Amino acid sequence: MKTVIKDVWILTMEGEGPAVKGDILIENDEIKRIVASIDEPADIVIQGSGMVALPGLINAHQHTPMSLLKGFSDDLKLMEWLEQKMLPAEARMTPEDIYWGAKLSMAEMIKSGTTAFADMYIHMDEIAQAVTEVGMRASLTRGLVFLEDDGGRRLAEALDLIERWDGKADGRITTMFGPHAPYTCPPEPFRHVVKLAEEMNKPIHVHLAETTEEVMKIRAAYNRTPTEYLYDVGLFERLHVLLAHSVHLNLKDIRLLKGMRGGVSHNPVSNAKLGCGIAPVRQMQEQGITVGMGTDGSGSATTIDMFEEIKAATWLQKLECGDPTVLPARQVLRMATVGSAKALNIDHQVGTLAVGKKADLILVDLNKPHLQPLHNLESLLAYGVNGSDVDTTIVNGKVLMRNRQLTTIDEEELLKQVAVRAKRIVEGI
Amino acid sequence: MKTVIKDVWILTMEGEGPAVKGDILIENDEIKRIVASIDEPADIVIQGSGMVALPGLINAHQHTPMSLLKGFSDDLKLMEWLEQKMLPAEARMTPEDIYWGAKLSMAEMIKSGTTAFADMYIHMDEIAQAVTEVGMRASLTRGLVFLEDDGGRRLAEALDLIERWDGKADGRITTMFGPHAPYTCPPEPFRHVVKLAEEMNKPIHVHLAETTEEVMKIRAAYNRTPTEYLYDVGLFERLHVLLAHSVHLNLKDIRLLKGMRGGVSHNPVSNAKLGCGIAPVRQMQEQGITVGMGTDGSGSATTIDMFEEIKAATWLQKLECGDPTVLPARQVLRMATVGSAKALNIDHQVGTLAVGKKADLILVDLNKPHLQPLHNLESLLAYGVNGSDVDTTIVNGKVLMRNRQLTTIDEEELLKQVAVRAKRIVEGI
Repeated sequence: MKTVIKDVWILTMEGEGPAVKGDILIENDEIKRIVASIDEPADIVIQGSGMVALPGLINAHQHTPMSLLKGFSDDLKLMEWLEQKMLPAEARMTPEDIYWGAKLSMAEMIKSGTTAFADMYIHMDEIAQAVTEVGMRASLTRGLVFLEDDGGRRLAEALDLIERWDGKADGRITTMFGPHAPYTCPPEPFRHVVKLAEEMNKPIHVHLAETTEEVMKIRAAYNRTPTEYLYDVGLFERLHVLLAHSVHLNLKDIRLLKGMRGGVSHNPVSNAKLGCGIAPVRQMQEQGITVGMGTDGSGSATTIDMFEEIKAATWLQKLECGDPTVLPARQVLRMATVGSAKALNIDHQVGTLAVGKKADLILVDLNKPHLQPLHNLESLLAYGVNGSDVDTTIVNGKVLMRNRQLTTIDEEELLKQVAVRAKRIVEGI
Repeated sequence: MKTVIKDVWILTMEGEGPAVKGDILIENDEIKRIVASIDEPADIVIQGSGMVALPGLINAHQHTPMSLLKGFSDDLKLMEWLEQKMLPAEARMTPEDIYWGAKLSMAEMIKSGTTAFADMYIHMDEIAQAVTEVGMRASLTRGLVFLEDDGGRRLAEALDLIERWDGKADGRITTMFGPHAPYTCPPEPFRHVVKLAEEMNKPIHVHLAETTEEVMKIRAAYNRTPTEYLYDVGLFERLHVLLAHSVHLNLKDIRLLKGMRGGVSHNPVSNAKLGCGIAPVRQMQEQGITVGMGTDGSGSATTIDMFEEIKAATWLQKLECGDPTVLPARQVLRMATVGSAKALNIDHQVGTLAVGKKADLILVDLNKPHLQPLHNLESLLAYGVNGSDVDTTIVNGKVLMRNRQLTTIDEEELLKQVAVRAKRIVEGI
């Protein structure tokens, strides 16, 4: 199976060079050639003129089924949001709801240029099934909360997920362990998970320092910062770790993280919308810590359009530093592509456009008033594009959207399912 | 000429009621009826099912021709941006460039749901001509800088604009005086403009306190804050005033503005992208000051999609206050509609959907994965929609876009003109 994309601006996100015009040859799941012109026959030929090809965006922190609760509980205090709205609604979600909610998020992601994501939720079988059918790339994690004794059920489900799904769907599915957060995982079970992860050589996906409330809680319980707490349970000794949020880190915390394997998922829209704060992205990057980008679930962020996240990330860092030169266009685009790929431990496969890498890429249509004139491609991508400008989304060599039409999801059926299920879930809450 | 919009969600932005489903009758330039069902014959019938009708967004601070410099000079220090990039490029713009640049901004605005805007620039004849042809509503201002003696040329052009264009284009064009900013207008010429504006009963559009540099400059020159400076030149005695930015106001400044006629244009994207700061929107609103919303020119903001501005405004206030309940969805939507209408002194005509008001409204298509399920219309509009979700834009009763096709602008010709001109303008800069 050969696909050729012709006459397209190509932003590989490798090195520092500017975008060039050329052709891309995809053979099966791989990028085979990126050259000025390809004339060999192909099964699919995509005319890319007026478009730019770049690596698919990678959403490093998601709770996909929460799309069913999008807009259900905005503008509330965090605890009210969680306790009076999210938890009662989530308790009503059936495995089938989870499947459709995950699929809804995937439809949104494909339509806004995201090709891979890291997900932490429950009923992961249903999500893995949806990933298999839809064709995206995903790092799946069963969230682990150890606040009450569940007889080991959650951990058993986490092990089951890893055992049955890791490497499946043509290698598109990877898995991690998911101890939820410092304040929901006491030291003993946390250390047990760390030990398991080390034995099985699996990464860990964990929330860190999202709110000041968390910082105060961990201070009261352990006389530590959340970062020190994670350090002390041994998280950073051998493991690849994906840290979600990391808003409230002090300089000592950042020094503790220096040299860590893995990286941070910066989720600026969720952090802003919930009033949590601005993560110290610049300081982390100065210490060489990998910072990727994610949206969090749409129950909090509403939008899971990574181009919104890109804008928000650079706006907020510029504001925080009082300096418009901070986090320039290329750097913030790198965060959402190769940065997230590193955080998900899949940068050997994706995150840049290069021969031999998996063909996860998107085409953005620039032939629109808001994306003209074309002075600087990277500026337009970082500050001007929104998800709706994505014309084509390709994952593992397979076209999942072309000319904004999804190829693996029946959109009409999806929206019908979603409407009925969402209504039932929130009724009376 | 009668237009009926059928079976649409209607968010009037009047009062506090939720959106209702119904029909809207437009006769010539006015909204005639908003009721459950309209069955009379009409020239145009728009099937609105799956869409929401709301007042057109109003961009309260623009420099439309700067669209030609979009993405040309991002990620630079403010002075480098201005002196090494913007000023040399602007100096090369011909009146014809201004016309096409303004038209490009208008195409972008119509396509992202903006129906009216306030513009401050030069060569206002060309902009007024473009407004006349395109069909938008605009408040036009010749920017006045009094740093060197120009023999009264600028002021003469400002008077000429007002004399020849105020009330033109079926009343769609209004005008203001535009003393540029405290740091570019010394007291004497500023007082002269205030006197003229009072005599002619015209509003004033002025930049205020955009940067800390401005605050320091005005402190050094006059031992005042920029707001005190405007107060002392008599700006707030009788005039309707449109204040752009107003980022750096202290509590005393805000008390000085309390009771002012007019309002503020909050431009959060530009303020963030240039690292300027977050305007004290909540404090201003608490003092009853009208706060509208604008984008600033796309030379700085890149995007002039008001739905981006809506998101940015609420994200930044929530962040600044550490409180997710601040600036909730309805309130931020009010800022971008009725708030801006008040700031532009056109709220008797537009800003809400009501019988007798001018028919300036937009239809947003909700039938998309990222805008489903429909738990809360206002949340989706504030946090989920982007400009590309706007299906139809109507100004003064005339359809300027339907099914995303512009009716008064030849998009292909526009983009061709823009490409050539933009290239010429920046060559070698």
